[in-house]
Amino acid sequence: MTYCVGLHLNDGLVMASDSRTNAGVDYVTTFSKMHLFQPAPDRIFVLLSAGNLATTQELIHQLTKELNEPGPFGSLLHSTTFFEVANYIGAVSQKIQSNHQHALSQSGISGEVSLILGGQIRGDSPHLMLIYPQGNSIHASTQTPYLQIGENKYGKPALDRIIKPEMSLGDGARLCLVSLDATSGSNITVGPPYEVCIYRTDSFSCCERYSYSEKNPELTAIQSKWKKGLRTAFTQLPTFEWENAPIITQKKFDSHTQTPPDNTEQ
Amino acid sequence: MTYCVGLHLNDGLVMASDSRTNAGVDYVTTFSKMHLFQPAPDRIFVLLSAGNLATTQELIHQLTKELNEPGPFGSLLHSTTFFEVANYIGAVSQKIQSNHQHALSQSGISGEVSLILGGQIRGDSPHLMLIYPQGNSIHASTQTPYLQIGENKYGKPALDRIIKPEMSLGDGARLCLVSLDATSGSNITVGPPYEVCIYRTDSFSCCERYSYSEKNPELTAIQSKWKKGLRTAFTQLPTFEWENAPIITQKKFDSHTQTPPDNTEQ
Repeated sequence: MTYCVGLHLNDGLVMASDSRTNAGVDYVTTFSKMHLFQPAPDRIFVLLSAGNLATTQELIHQLTKELNEPGPFGSLLHSTTFFEVANYIGAVSQKIQSNHQHALSQSGISGEVSLILGGQIRGDSPHLMLIYPQGNSIHASTQTPYLQIGENKYGKPALDRIIKPEMSLGDGARLCLVSLDATSGSNITVGPPYEVCIYRTDSFSCCERYSYSEKNPELTAIQSKWKKGLRTAFTQLPTFEWENAPIITQKKFDSHTQTPPDNTEQ
Repeated sequence: MTYCVGLHLNDGLVMASDSRTNAGVDYVTTFSKMHLFQPAPDRIFVLLSAGNLATTQELIHQLTKELNEPGPFGSLLHSTTFFEVANYIGAVSQKIQSNHQHALSQSGISGEVSLILGGQIRGDSPHLMLIYPQGNSIHASTQTPYLQIGENKYGKPALDRIIKPEMSLGDGARLCLVSLDATSGSNITVGPPYEVCIYRTDSFSCCERYSYSEKNPELTAIQSKWKKGLRTAFTQLPTFEWENAPIITQKKFDSHTQTPPDNTEQ
């Protein structure tokens, strides 16, 4: 599996990805899932990928190739809006999946990829989008300034509780590492090195990109301080009344008086 | 969905469940998922359930009925070991699922239930077991002193980082609420009232059971203090070197030199 997350903050974008890949549990490898495109001075794109690695690599190859020879869906260089770029990438992704679908489905393998696309085209503000395996896409918003792909559940509570669009890009990067760490701590298919990319609004000329291996001192400092902070927060929670004077209560089986219209899931 | 969690601590067991049920997103109801059985002074059982509500209710009915008239698989009263109890419940659950399978599968509905069983039979220590929909089961262990069923991913990082078998039962109850809160904060299919059951080793005679509605002052105090604690922990994380002196780095596309033997998942 994979876990990638992107934050759309007031100062710019923070995008982060793990680097663990696997073909079954007995073939675990390391691949970057962060792909940078800066085809012209007026535009910059960062693509995070989750799903079938072969589809992703063919997609990156195709996007790179079409910078020089635009294909039937356009190119990163020729799209005029960010939405067009997302649509273009989605269409190329769909085409690649469709080319291999017959053979993959015969082996019961999914060729799908999910993508997070961040970046900016001059004249417009930065954008952060999630491109679905089906080729369509959604924007992040001020209400939900983050997007996730891959193994997204473990790292979501930290995002939901801490993220604010006005946080600094440094805080954004720390939040991404905390969210990645929550995921890899509970799921072995997600792991370092973690890559973090910072895009400052209107910078265009550069992209700060950092890689945090398992033993990187900045990463281990954040991990241990976060774990310690969680434990401190936990020890400061208020006690229950019953801890001082236990109250014995006992309920009988519930009386189920409601009749749901369909099979109900607990 | 559901989220239930059980902790096997040195002082006893803590078991907790949410109470939200749904048949689609437009039919959300509240049912207890915690079922208490105390059929004789020498034994006590608490059962948490996730999955098809009809199967669960039929299971509870059957277990209750068979206290007086043991069925082909035994009864809660007649089983001599905790493992036998788990096997018995698993067998009854399987039978019920199988009785309805034809009709349910025609409607594309799953009749499965997952269960957490906690309790004690005199002469033995307390046990905590997960009973799978297939009827087989596993124990919690000192290495992994918790079991979860239902929507288990959101609430797992907090468990993984904080749980210790030597923590008090009060701390265990707080940890369960923190884990439930992480889940319901990120997934609307899980919600209060949260039920918490405390079983003190060798107590037999009683079972402390508490219900925390959405506005319960003890629950809201824990939720707000935890959220504040998380934010405090976050603000205390060390800063990156690049925050003071940004370093511009840029990588080219990865060179993919490895050839995985099978389709690799990112």
